[in-house]
Amino acid sequence: MSEKITIYDIAKKLNITAATVSRALNNNPKIKESTRELVLKTAASMNYKQNKLALALKSGRSNNIGVIVPRIDSNFFASVIRGIEEELHPHGYQVIICQTHEDPKRESENLYTLIDAQVDGILMSVTDVANENTAAFQYVLNKNVPLVFFDRSKHIDGVSSVTINDFKGGYMTTKHLIDEGCKAIAHFSGDLSLEIFKNRFLGYKQALSDHGMPFNEAYVIRTKSALDSGKEAVNVLLQLETPPDAIFSSSDFAALGAIQVLKEKNISIPEEFCVAGFSNEPFTKFMELSITSVDQSPLEMGKMSARVFLEQVDKTDTIKIEKKVVLAPELHIRKSSSRTVS
Amino acid sequence: MSEKITIYDIAKKLNITAATVSRALNNNPKIKESTRELVLKTAASMNYKQNKLALALKSGRSNNIGVIVPRIDSNFFASVIRGIEEELHPHGYQVIICQTHEDPKRESENLYTLIDAQVDGILMSVTDVANENTAAFQYVLNKNVPLVFFDRSKHIDGVSSVTINDFKGGYMTTKHLIDEGCKAIAHFSGDLSLEIFKNRFLGYKQALSDHGMPFNEAYVIRTKSALDSGKEAVNVLLQLETPPDAIFSSSDFAALGAIQVLKEKNISIPEEFCVAGFSNEPFTKFMELSITSVDQSPLEMGKMSARVFLEQVDKTDTIKIEKKVVLAPELHIRKSSSRTVS
Repeated sequence: MSEKITIYDIAKKLNITAATVSRALNNNPKIKESTRELVLKTAASMNYKQNKLALALKSGRSNNIGVIVPRIDSNFFASVIRGIEEELHPHGYQVIICQTHEDPKRESENLYTLIDAQVDGILMSVTDVANENTAAFQYVLNKNVPLVFFDRSKHIDGVSSVTINDFKGGYMTTKHLIDEGCKAIAHFSGDLSLEIFKNRFLGYKQALSDHGMPFNEAYVIRTKSALDSGKEAVNVLLQLETPPDAIFSSSDFAALGAIQVLKEKNISIPEEFCVAGFSNEPFTKFMELSITSVDQSPLEMGKMSARVFLEQVDKTDTIKIEKKVVLAPELHIRKSSSRTVS
Repeated sequence: MSEKITIYDIAKKLNITAATVSRALNNNPKIKESTRELVLKTAASMNYKQNKLALALKSGRSNNIGVIVPRIDSNFFASVIRGIEEELHPHGYQVIICQTHEDPKRESENLYTLIDAQVDGILMSVTDVANENTAAFQYVLNKNVPLVFFDRSKHIDGVSSVTINDFKGGYMTTKHLIDEGCKAIAHFSGDLSLEIFKNRFLGYKQALSDHGMPFNEAYVIRTKSALDSGKEAVNVLLQLETPPDAIFSSSDFAALGAIQVLKEKNISIPEEFCVAGFSNEPFTKFMELSITSVDQSPLEMGKMSARVFLEQVDKTDTIKIEKKVVLAPELHIRKSSSRTVS
């Protein structure tokens, strides 16, 4: 019977120690790849069934980390995940990813799924729909599984977060547009109930105020992070009695949509109209008319989130550390808003 | 009531722990049968996740599916995953994702990780590095966990796959370049030991032969799916005694790199030089000089892979069905290769 096969049998067959077999079966990075393959092959041929639950109970660790993001098809989130992996992989952790598609129900399902999959920690960016999901988050915390928010965070006692200074990002972009001579700057905002979008908006407002420019409610349009949403929004702006001459968009995708419409209408960029986005998605650089955007250091954000997790998982006491890491944004000025040729 | 019922709510109502509820719903054998029935009854009465509940009633399912891709930051793989999710979510399955970064060691780690996480099936696209990872695949198959390959597959007895007709994709793109009047067509290939890249190359070669054009070994350059790789490759081609006047690239990213170099050198596209890519990444459409590319129906590919999995997981007998689904590619002709204005 396969139940009777133990790591000792495998060790005996290969003439190595049981400890080595155990490490190989646990994907311990200290084990040579050739040894690991040999052990796994032998274990498979002997029909050895590893009791991972027993292993997890013994070590208290599955060495799996769960990451939840709104979507994986954005360079920003993909880069954060790459940062998390680069930091955690050398520590022997495997990263498994779930996406919410901005659906709070999916978000709570993802949380339960990852706990069921015995992860040692969850690093996540919450959905852009205001929601509570209190029970699901509480369930994770009750399991004593470290939870770290990145980029989009919500306030929960004892939960750490890694974000960028979105206020500063909004401020510096708006100030740049003012410096380029723009007189009426519009703003594409996200859901203002989310911290990141609220702060980008507040930075925009503060920059206007600091430079003696009036704030016009009609110039603020809520958009989704999508091409079509940017197209619709710029059409609304262009139909105003006094249309703006610049847009600071909280999304690169919406900024691109706006640019496509402006081009169709033969409004020249940046001479007549300046556009700036947020996130520094690769296409902003690829375009012939490259798009000014704010870089959010996603790789660094991922690494930092991973480090915050490692600090928490290595804590043996039960005192919760609530750490708030705020990274600095970086403005990349490109053709879409460069009137002054250097 | 729109409030989401969670296992936490069920636990509260029954005055037991959420962990017990979770175990009962997952048919953990450690839970007493009477407790399990009580939990399932209460869950049903509270309208808790009907689909998942129905599935949980059948024994031995985690309702989690693992997906392994080379990288998540490509629109192609992200779209396949979306297709998988769209098909499986209504059946109560949650999708968890791992990436290999084209590293065979990561690939085998991912396989063990997902099995440890108790997934009911694994849908994957293999790394572009020729490798065996025999032990890891055998481990999955010995566990009787259905395995389905999509896009990049390898031949393993009893394993199904969903791919597109890459030969046809290569053929139709090359034929299109010939129709546009190109006389010397180069090819950026991937690792030819992988089926998909080999077939795109063979399609290219066949189209040349069918149209009486000579095949020139020097025109075939192995590139990675990256901007810089395309830049290097086109520089090599331009230094040839007889440089080509067109490129069929098996990667959109490499095609974009080539275009950037050609522009820098003031070689006009498509008049003097035509370029076509593969995958139909969104940026190929966004560019002012939009790029001709082959669409691989990633959403459909994901859905089809999910359907193949569902057929296998519902099988109660042990006969393995090896299903090979081949989808048709679609050529999107854009500015980078449109000499004939319609």
